[in-house]
Amino acid sequence: MLSFTIATMAAAFVFFVLAQRNLAPKYRISMMVSALVVFIAGYHYFRIFNSFEGAYQLSQAGFSYEPTGKPLNDAYRYVDWLLTVPLLTVELVLVMDLPEGESGPLAAKLGFAAALMIALGYPGEMSESTALIGQRGLWGFLSTLPFIYVLYKLFAGLGDVLDRQSGEVATLLGNARLLLLLTWGWYPIVYMVPMFVSGYPSEAPGTLVTLQVGYTIADVAAKAGYGVLIYAIAKQKSVEEGYNVDTMVEPAATT
Amino acid sequence: MLSFTIATMAAAFVFFVLAQRNLAPKYRISMMVSALVVFIAGYHYFRIFNSFEGAYQLSQAGFSYEPTGKPLNDAYRYVDWLLTVPLLTVELVLVMDLPEGESGPLAAKLGFAAALMIALGYPGEMSESTALIGQRGLWGFLSTLPFIYVLYKLFAGLGDVLDRQSGEVATLLGNARLLLLLTWGWYPIVYMVPMFVSGYPSEAPGTLVTLQVGYTIADVAAKAGYGVLIYAIAKQKSVEEGYNVDTMVEPAATT
Repeated sequence: MLSFTIATMAAAFVFFVLAQRNLAPKYRISMMVSALVVFIAGYHYFRIFNSFEGAYQLSQAGFSYEPTGKPLNDAYRYVDWLLTVPLLTVELVLVMDLPEGESGPLAAKLGFAAALMIALGYPGEMSESTALIGQRGLWGFLSTLPFIYVLYKLFAGLGDVLDRQSGEVATLLGNARLLLLLTWGWYPIVYMVPMFVSGYPSEAPGTLVTLQVGYTIADVAAKAGYGVLIYAIAKQKSVEEGYNVDTMVEPAATT
Repeated sequence: MLSFTIATMAAAFVFFVLAQRNLAPKYRISMMVSALVVFIAGYHYFRIFNSFEGAYQLSQAGFSYEPTGKPLNDAYRYVDWLLTVPLLTVELVLVMDLPEGESGPLAAKLGFAAALMIALGYPGEMSESTALIGQRGLWGFLSTLPFIYVLYKLFAGLGDVLDRQSGEVATLLGNARLLLLLTWGWYPIVYMVPMFVSGYPSEAPGTLVTLQVGYTIADVAAKAGYGVLIYAIAKQKSVEEGYNVDTMVEPAATT
């Protein structure tokens, strides 16, 4: 699963770098940010992969992993999110192409809230106490507050931005927003799994695997899948602004 | 923290390489230098990471690092600085776009002073004596002299250069100079920490970690953050010189 993700992120990186030239120049920056996100994620999955190889070894029969006694370093995941999750909000803002002067402040607010969300989640993840009314529950709750702020900004605050777009772009932007809601909303569900399992983490290795698999699925969808959706939006907007995306002829030259 | 920095430097490298084409051709060289700086730094952080993994191991509980007995090789940091710190001064000089014939000599003087600053600091860092009036204090003091020379050149000598720029560029250049002062000024503070801790380095592993974290924060700000600021300056100057940075149409073609 971890190796699958390294391959996916690396392939997504190549795609986002190469796909830039099919877009109108002003939308290329959103693909650059997508490329940075999957690059950073790919790097961290490489680290998580190595940490996992050190912490578990395949049993002789080859059907199960046995702990070696060395701990799995989960900090890589949070460091990755600290860098990539704010960039995901920036991607969405960039592709919206807001009026002059609105993009910067909105991206800064959403990015800061996203970073705060990750930073607040980490102490709970590291905590041995998994009770709902305990360390994990408390930090998880605090982390949800900036998440709600991001959702509020994207759903309540951007209605008029969607109205200004063409039907097709509005649908795609709505989809990207929805994908963000679904994938980001998936993480807290995974985060809460240990609350229902006794003896986590030391006596419940299966739960640890559930967490790793759960977070990994979400990362692939929220980074690579989301980036492809951003590409679709950028391409559609390029077409609507008069670019021939097949020949990359500029609007001025076609008329 | 070390892994975070590898990811940041690598992502910054990708960004600086890709961002070049959004700039007027004469400012692309400053982004190239930024890319070199973070590339070299990313490589050295990879080395420091491996050296740290050899020198410390994660405890069973996963919450603390224990020394293995192998020393951490700090030379990587100084070798990194010896290469990158002169390049940081070169970046700033290049983006200023000084009159013909002034850039080369100024970049050479600042670069040489910056290299001298690093070379003089190293013997103090390696010294077991941490007294203020001792090896660490002496070399630290000598290292400060070229640092003051660099600041003198940038603050006293470049007033008329800033006056020649537009308001927005002057502000950004002033910010870059200030970031250089703040980040470069942060290193000597970290350097002085062991002077106030007895038994450094062998009996004070916590102080060693403080140094690593302190230097790392400064490196991220002084290399990746600074590069982004240089990008902002180069982009603003490109716009003012008539380039449409969104479509990258040359000024001659637009008129």
